[in-house]
Amino acid sequence: MDIATILGVISAFGLVWIAIFMGGGIQLFINIPALMIVVGGTLGATMINYPLRDVFGVFKVVKKALFARNTSVAELIKRFMAFAQKSRKEGILALEVELKEVNDEFLKKGVQLAIDGLEPQEINDILETEVEFVRSRHQLGAEIFSTMGTFSPALGMIGTLIGLVQMLQTMDDPSRVGPAMAIALLTTFYGSIIANIVCLPISGKLRTRSREEVLTKEMAIQGIVSLSNGDNPRILEQKLQAFIPPNQRESS
Amino acid sequence: MDIATILGVISAFGLVWIAIFMGGGIQLFINIPALMIVVGGTLGATMINYPLRDVFGVFKVVKKALFARNTSVAELIKRFMAFAQKSRKEGILALEVELKEVNDEFLKKGVQLAIDGLEPQEINDILETEVEFVRSRHQLGAEIFSTMGTFSPALGMIGTLIGLVQMLQTMDDPSRVGPAMAIALLTTFYGSIIANIVCLPISGKLRTRSREEVLTKEMAIQGIVSLSNGDNPRILEQKLQAFIPPNQRESS
Amino acid sequence: MDIATILGVISAFGLVWIAIFMGGGIQLFINIPALMIVVGGTLGATMINYPLRDVFGVFKVVKKALFARNTSVAELIKRFMAFAQKSRKEGILALEVELKEVNDEFLKKGVQLAIDGLEPQEINDILETEVEFVRSRHQLGAEIFSTMGTFSPALGMIGTLIGLVQMLQTMDDPSRVGPAMAIALLTTFYGSIIANIVCLPISGKLRTRSREEVLTKEMAIQGIVSLSNGDNPRILEQKLQAFIPPNQRESS
Amino acid sequence: MDIATILGVISAFGLVWIAIFMGGGIQLFINIPALMIVVGGTLGATMINYPLRDVFGVFKVVKKALFARNTSVAELIKRFMAFAQKSRKEGILALEVELKEVNDEFLKKGVQLAIDGLEPQEINDILETEVEFVRSRHQLGAEIFSTMGTFSPALGMIGTLIGLVQMLQTMDDPSRVGPAMAIALLTTFYGSIIANIVCLPISGKLRTRSREEVLTKEMAIQGIVSLSNGDNPRILEQKLQAFIPPNQRESS
Amino acid sequence: MDIATILGVISAFGLVWIAIFMGGGIQLFINIPALMIVVGGTLGATMINYPLRDVFGVFKVVKKALFARNTSVAELIKRFMAFAQKSRKEGILALEVELKEVNDEFLKKGVQLAIDGLEPQEINDILETEVEFVRSRHQLGAEIFSTMGTFSPALGMIGTLIGLVQMLQTMDDPSRVGPAMAIALLTTFYGSIIANIVCLPISGKLRTRSREEVLTKEMAIQGIVSLSNGDNPRILEQKLQAFIPPNQRESS
Repeated sequence: MDIATILGVISAFGLVWIAIFMGGGIQLFINIPALMIVVGGTLGATMINYPLRDVFGVFKVVKKALFARNTSVAELIKRFMAFAQKSRKEGILALEVELKEVNDEFLKKGVQLAIDGLEPQEINDILETEVEFVRSRHQLGAEIFSTMGTFSPALGMIGTLIGLVQMLQTMDDPSRVGPAMAIALLTTFYGSIIANIVCLPISGKLRTRSREEVLTKEMAIQGIVSLSNGDNPRILEQKLQAFIPPNQRESS
Repeated sequence: MDIATILGVISAFGLVWIAIFMGGGIQLFINIPALMIVVGGTLGATMINYPLRDVFGVFKVVKKALFARNTSVAELIKRFMAFAQKSRKEGILALEVELKEVNDEFLKKGVQLAIDGLEPQEINDILETEVEFVRSRHQLGAEIFSTMGTFSPALGMIGTLIGLVQMLQTMDDPSRVGPAMAIALLTTFYGSIIANIVCLPISGKLRTRSREEVLTKEMAIQGIVSLSNGDNPRILEQKLQAFIPPNQRESS
Repeated sequence: MDIATILGVISAFGLVWIAIFMGGGIQLFINIPALMIVVGGTLGATMINYPLRDVFGVFKVVKKALFARNTSVAELIKRFMAFAQKSRKEGILALEVELKEVNDEFLKKGVQLAIDGLEPQEINDILETEVEFVRSRHQLGAEIFSTMGTFSPALGMIGTLIGLVQMLQTMDDPSRVGPAMAIALLTTFYGSIIANIVCLPISGKLRTRSREEVLTKEMAIQGIVSLSNGDNPRILEQKLQAFIPPNQRESS
Repeated sequence: MDIATILGVISAFGLVWIAIFMGGGIQLFINIPALMIVVGGTLGATMINYPLRDVFGVFKVVKKALFARNTSVAELIKRFMAFAQKSRKEGILALEVELKEVNDEFLKKGVQLAIDGLEPQEINDILETEVEFVRSRHQLGAEIFSTMGTFSPALGMIGTLIGLVQMLQTMDDPSRVGPAMAIALLTTFYGSIIANIVCLPISGKLRTRSREEVLTKEMAIQGIVSLSNGDNPRILEQKLQAFIPPNQRESS
Repeated sequence: MDIATILGVISAFGLVWIAIFMGGGIQLFINIPALMIVVGGTLGATMINYPLRDVFGVFKVVKKALFARNTSVAELIKRFMAFAQKSRKEGILALEVELKEVNDEFLKKGVQLAIDGLEPQEINDILETEVEFVRSRHQLGAEIFSTMGTFSPALGMIGTLIGLVQMLQTMDDPSRVGPAMAIALLTTFYGSIIANIVCLPISGKLRTRSREEVLTKEMAIQGIVSLSNGDNPRILEQKLQAFIPPNQRESS
């Protein structure tokens, strides 16, 4: 789990937590029916909206986005430089041994295609198709979370309306108006928290991660195609460095 | 009706229902004039917005989106493999017998065109036109539902304003203020429910379904054109598998 | 006036009307200064926004969109079939007689151009330019109405703020608070009604109508160009039917 | 100043004025600190957002958009017809005399380029660049006003929050609650007025004016290029009339 | 720091400050827990949304956007004219001496590439890649600030809801309701201020600055490519002046 997410979760939830404790304790803010309306209603509306498979699949996408370590681009360049030098000296078939140490399935598959002798253009097409599916999977995940971030405040408001109607219809004892209204407001509170501290930031995270991962994969494709073309290692390095912001480049 | 929609409807409506019952009973939330303003007003505004034919047609589109079983893509590939093998051995005319077992009208029409000996390009053009109409019909459906999801909270607010104005003008008996305000809020409640648990999720569902159905139809077109070209069954399989995410592919 | 609009207006306004009557009578909801602020302010803001000519021109566009009977596409195909057969037998000049019975100015002009012997490409260019102006006129109309639908709730809120400020400053007699607030809310009520039952649905209607009319005109252009090319009537029919959804086609 | 703007300003501001007077007098609605927060805060946020030069430049753009008389297209066509006839008879150099009577700087520069004997393509490129700058200047103006129209209601709400916090903290005398709240609401009122009667309509006006002015300039470019090509006056007329809606054309 | 930003900050914050002081003093508006929820929560949600590196990097981008003096375009043209004249007389290698006085890293690198004898097309590609990274860095910065401007009012509302729930549950002493509500409103106040006077205007500033800087860099690329081509100084001047609005041009 990357450090930004940890810090973000701590500061966002932690501060809300502290504010709640300073004002008199967490028990005022726990109301199971209110939570059920917001969470259940939001999930319900989302499940009407998207196929079940996609709604559940989104959690896998999130887990991967939060925990998977992205291949470092500097490492990737180094690896390709090594591949290119070995391939130049001993022929591309010699890479077969190296592949055993590669964990990245995408990279492994791509280099294997180069070893198998497919045309560079074919390799490019096959890998681009995979990248396209990765991108659309991420995009669907981001879209599902922003949909949930749209439904949850709406469900929160629906819950508050339910509470208000019930309170107003039975308003005989004025001393009970305050607490009843407080409970009615809890669904709006839950809806806002779920939207703004959970769903929308995660949706943004998936979008950011997707951009990064797709860029790394595009670099890998460029490298594999270069290997398959038998490019000179220095030219390969230059081609890969074009993917990195100038101030992060380090020449070898 | 697919399982996600059932689960979604149960969890969304069920939880709202439970919350209402726990707070004192459903009769507080039933108000026929309020329901009439929101439902009638929303349908009215929608009927000014779209031709009558489209507004009524949308229910057929929804029914189909919720209940029609989509052709499974794995099944579709298998079927095309069988077609291709038979066509290779016994000629494309032999497919005429197979067609009797096909329920999918689109597939039937397309293969018939191939049997009739039209050029692959012509077949492609004719079928793409049909897909275009399917897509625009779905899109219109999704658009009508999201329009309704925009009008219904607005009508809910109009109803609440009517209730508030009436209440405020005749506010002589303070004990009646609460119940009158509760009733005024009901239209806002109805408007939110209709928008967020009915119209907007269904609009999303139509969009999702459309994407799926169009993809399946595009696969079918690719398969039919391949048949018409007399492609080798293995090549046909590869062409069709390009439409499936890599992790769902199964080679035969 | 098409039936959907009539039904829409009746159900939307009718239900609001009923709700108002059930709650004590229409006189609570009539307030001339409030109506003046909302209607006048909305028109004012719109007139600052658009040239006077366009604001007034929009009413003509609306009238036409609501009342003009669209040429039926089936009828249009039949007419072109007849034209094509006559033109084949007696030459294109023979169509001059037929034109006298044509009411549609656009169709008349187009066929006249074909009779006059212009090149098909020239005819196409001239007519497409006219369609482009029709489309941009409709689009401007839809835009003006959605602008009004944005300004009217804002003006409604401004009116309510005026009422609230006046009420709050002179709040010596508590019994007058209720009615004064009711009147203040009326501008918000008017603003919502004007936006959601009048302006936004009409804006949508203009967009829908525009799509239909442009499609019919595109069909007519295709037909006229076909006539000018001397196409076989059956080919002309097929070309025109490509504009109709498959399930609405009827072969002759 | 065009008549639509005058009418719009009168009806929008006039009606708000009348509503205020009918309710007890303008002095309730004047509050200098409230006005300072909204106007100053909006200008401040806008000046952080845009360079000073652009913020001040926008007033010149608005003045021009409201007061400058647009060249009438009919007049423009007549002028070009005269130019073309003279140029045909006496050569293009004869236009130098005519130019002295032309006020439109853009037209003057363009025709001068044609007299100087530049290639039509070069003339077109130079003038299109100028039009591009005119368009982007207008667009920036429209964007600045719509930014102000977004900030002013937000600043209005900030002012109201300040007023509410102050009122609530010192709520010992109930009779002062009403007037204090009225004053707090004034900033929201100012913010809404500034956004919806001033900034947003002006932003729309700049966009509309820009479309018109660019169209007129495009017509002029077409005419100048035609002159430079030595086109026949009738052909030039036809080319220019393609810019006018069919129902406004008048053949000469 | 440019003068518009200073003026903007003074007028926006200053006026809010004055309004607060006129109403009774700043101490009513200071509430550390409220500030912690809004600032911490907004930063938290932003850190979940974006990688830590990007969130911290954005401050560098802002500092540069506010304080860095943009190269004046007039100066840039003059410099390129001098370069071009020297290069014409003494050869492009003579520019090496001039480069020592150039502070702009981008310009320095570009001219060095020309001195090194790379092809104009290669120079263009290398520099365009750098500009592309500058642009995407600015765009990311603007996006992060507008994300913060979306989260901060939401967090403000969450804080207000926390305050309201606490107040309503313990509403035994009516005299404490006012101050408690005032404190609850403070988070909404902070959220609005942070969004509308800090985050959104800065986001806009970054976008404006980016446009300017990219334009200047595009001019520099054009100039360097021209140098490398050995263009005549006058032609180079004309090419560069095409980037400036006509009314700001000064011929040399």
